[in-house]
Amino acid sequence: MVRAIMHGCNGKMGQVITGLIKADEGIELVAGIDTYTGIDNDYPVFERIDQCDVKADVIIDFSNAKAVDDLLDYCTDRNVPVVLCTTGLSKEQLGKVKKASEKTAVLKSANMSLGVNLLMKLLRDAAKILGPAGFDIELVERHHNQKVDAPSGTALALADSINEAMDHTYEYVYDRSQVRRKRDQKEIGIFAVRGGTIVGDHEVIFAGADEVIEFRHTAYSKTVFGKGAVEAAKFLAGKPAGAYDMSDVIRF
Amino acid sequence: MVRAIMHGCNGKMGQVITGLIKADEGIELVAGIDTYTGIDNDYPVFERIDQCDVKADVIIDFSNAKAVDDLLDYCTDRNVPVVLCTTGLSKEQLGKVKKASEKTAVLKSANMSLGVNLLMKLLRDAAKILGPAGFDIELVERHHNQKVDAPSGTALALADSINEAMDHTYEYVYDRSQVRRKRDQKEIGIFAVRGGTIVGDHEVIFAGADEVIEFRHTAYSKTVFGKGAVEAAKFLAGKPAGAYDMSDVIRF
Amino acid sequence: MVRAIMHGCNGKMGQVITGLIKADEGIELVAGIDTYTGIDNDYPVFERIDQCDVKADVIIDFSNAKAVDDLLDYCTDRNVPVVLCTTGLSKEQLGKVKKASEKTAVLKSANMSLGVNLLMKLLRDAAKILGPAGFDIELVERHHNQKVDAPSGTALALADSINEAMDHTYEYVYDRSQVRRKRDQKEIGIFAVRGGTIVGDHEVIFAGADEVIEFRHTAYSKTVFGKGAVEAAKFLAGKPAGAYDMSDVIRF
Amino acid sequence: MVRAIMHGCNGKMGQVITGLIKADEGIELVAGIDTYTGIDNDYPVFERIDQCDVKADVIIDFSNAKAVDDLLDYCTDRNVPVVLCTTGLSKEQLGKVKKASEKTAVLKSANMSLGVNLLMKLLRDAAKILGPAGFDIELVERHHNQKVDAPSGTALALADSINEAMDHTYEYVYDRSQVRRKRDQKEIGIFAVRGGTIVGDHEVIFAGADEVIEFRHTAYSKTVFGKGAVEAAKFLAGKPAGAYDMSDVIRF
Repeated sequence: MVRAIMHGCNGKMGQVITGLIKADEGIELVAGIDTYTGIDNDYPVFERIDQCDVKADVIIDFSNAKAVDDLLDYCTDRNVPVVLCTTGLSKEQLGKVKKASEKTAVLKSANMSLGVNLLMKLLRDAAKILGPAGFDIELVERHHNQKVDAPSGTALALADSINEAMDHTYEYVYDRSQVRRKRDQKEIGIFAVRGGTIVGDHEVIFAGADEVIEFRHTAYSKTVFGKGAVEAAKFLAGKPAGAYDMSDVIRF
Repeated sequence: MVRAIMHGCNGKMGQVITGLIKADEGIELVAGIDTYTGIDNDYPVFERIDQCDVKADVIIDFSNAKAVDDLLDYCTDRNVPVVLCTTGLSKEQLGKVKKASEKTAVLKSANMSLGVNLLMKLLRDAAKILGPAGFDIELVERHHNQKVDAPSGTALALADSINEAMDHTYEYVYDRSQVRRKRDQKEIGIFAVRGGTIVGDHEVIFAGADEVIEFRHTAYSKTVFGKGAVEAAKFLAGKPAGAYDMSDVIRF
Repeated sequence: MVRAIMHGCNGKMGQVITGLIKADEGIELVAGIDTYTGIDNDYPVFERIDQCDVKADVIIDFSNAKAVDDLLDYCTDRNVPVVLCTTGLSKEQLGKVKKASEKTAVLKSANMSLGVNLLMKLLRDAAKILGPAGFDIELVERHHNQKVDAPSGTALALADSINEAMDHTYEYVYDRSQVRRKRDQKEIGIFAVRGGTIVGDHEVIFAGADEVIEFRHTAYSKTVFGKGAVEAAKFLAGKPAGAYDMSDVIRF
Repeated sequence: MVRAIMHGCNGKMGQVITGLIKADEGIELVAGIDTYTGIDNDYPVFERIDQCDVKADVIIDFSNAKAVDDLLDYCTDRNVPVVLCTTGLSKEQLGKVKKASEKTAVLKSANMSLGVNLLMKLLRDAAKILGPAGFDIELVERHHNQKVDAPSGTALALADSINEAMDHTYEYVYDRSQVRRKRDQKEIGIFAVRGGTIVGDHEVIFAGADEVIEFRHTAYSKTVFGKGAVEAAKFLAGKPAGAYDMSDVIRF
């Protein structure tokens, strides 16, 4: 049984993961960390990670950028693998993440869902065939009306995945309304639809001569990200130092 | 039997309409106009409209902006109704169209397809219910990679149709990648996907709390625009002077 | 402030509605009914409705078919309007519902979501134009893999809505794999996709010559049904006896 | 330059391919076969294949089942590779195809489009990951209202491709309206939408816990099948005897 600490245990995702792990026989939560302590969990909760003296095989993190520095110090010092799900890290922090991965196992992905990570792999394969065959590639994502960034990190990760397969020869276009010109073959249009409470849809379009192939991922709740994080934690426990991502978990 | 002249008879759409009318028992082509005369049609073809002495009940126009001035003069002088399908007219020309409609029947629509024009009507009805109920409205269109303008005229016509139903209180947004901010309830995101040979897709999204309603129109060939033009011509023959559009033909 | 009783208050939907009403300033819950009493609500809970002596303006019901008979007796005896959301009623019970509506206000709909009910109205309008113009009509619904009935009640309600607009001249087809024959113009194909935890998608397709118009409704959670029920309750309080449905609430 | 014979040259697809090859610098048509000889082609046309004395590197066939026996005899006798696109062959004929492939190169695919064949490959990969992860698999295809068979050969080929990846453990379900029961994990629902002039859409749905992944292929005209056939012909010329299909042409 993998022993895990939930970093950010009383946030929305922390509670989702608490529920998922309760129903999972391969992993248990032995402690939680959260500045807010008003929720009654089955495990002890500490306000700051340096107060936590419970031994664990892995830490799952869904907190916020401010808490990540202390977390990385803790994981490096004690050599505890960490599944890092907090987004919006600064350049300095990303550098620190990289350094930490030299001393312990660190798993970080733009999107934790199984489906999105599979999609990334399939898109690379598709792009290698369809790009040279003259298909144009476009991406439309949809999220709820409270999201402040656009396009989504996942949309960019999908586009990067395609671009990597094409030797980074494509450029991203976010607006076509300002110039009158034909589409360039080496561009990927990326558009951000915003509305209602949409959890996260991503659609990639390959348009060729009289045929179109589309790949679409729809998330119906944030549970999908929690599930991926739990799988990642089970995978990461006991792994040697290094930088991992979800594609390692899925092992195509 | 309605007697029609095909203005721009040897272009792609002119030939499509020639074929459609051949199979239609309610209308016949009695003459064509085109500067290119290399195609052998069943009707006489004139290089310029002022050379045409064949009497007709209506003119169908799918030519180019340059040819429209002479066409409007001809229709005004002889009081012949005209279905005007050429796009990209200048402001001066649009003024001339308006003047012409005081002397003869002129039908002009951003999109000639039956489906798109029905959609405009339904979107107005939907917006009146869903807008006040807090649904966000977004629009994604797709066209082939040779199209130089974005968004499409049809996309703007659909958005205008919605905006009209909302007392013109909405603003259009074409790019969300440049600012970090939440969506405003009074905006309509409009995005232009370009790729392959896509004839024309338009998708309107109403996103509310945990539910989404979508309306989508897909054109599989330019024949749909020709069909609408033929129906419009049959409708317009014999009508009094005035400015008409496809909604008059469909009569909801 | 409308005073409501939640019938089936400790089921999934009962709890969703409890949450929605807590955040709504126009309505409050004054009592709940549920055989299971293990949840601590802000209002008194009775095991059986005939034990409830709290006066209310309306009852919202999301219980099960067995509990509906007593509910209808209660509402008829005391003249309390009722929003009846329980499905799977027997023929006898449907007869009893009809009788009850002669003595009190009863609102019953195949689907409680605002979006689906708007869709029904728009589909009727679309069918009247597109049906005579030769468009074929098809319907595909998607639900989770635990659903035992197919097609969904909502799918049938959408199809009936279209068929009503076409003077009931269409027949429904659920399987095309058993016979080799061309599609009849007067049929509506209705297909039930089942998978995962899909809450409920409904897609109606009008396919014509080289153009397709689609209408799609996606529910992201059961909250949408709760929201419709709350709106219905606010509408129904104080209304005279009669049979109502969601289209009365929306008033197109 | 590959020298090809077009078998069924005056049918719709024969003419499409004639046009495609005219614009292709790697292949030319040196003869055509068709019982109907009313079209004026740039190459000699014979009514029956045994009358054809023009030497060629490959034959492209888009004729009808009746003509296939003579075609196979011709190809076997003269050792000419053949791209066999005619569908609806009898069991006997399929046996004969197999025998022919022992003497000459025979390429046969349920669907000739590049996109569909890529999709088959990607679906196998996706199924291997998502099937064991508990995703349910469903398939919806759409074709025009004149198609007599359902589901389409391509839909079955896509399903077979998935089933092959799952060790043939899945069963196909074409109708869910006749029994009240939960979905079995080991079934694939396959549904055939029919309407208008839809050339051919295929959508495969993987539905998991709170996430859905969809793959969709849309053909906008039959040109896509012709293009695949031309690529196949260029590939097959000069190849040794054997049974080939489109996946050999694409070489993932």
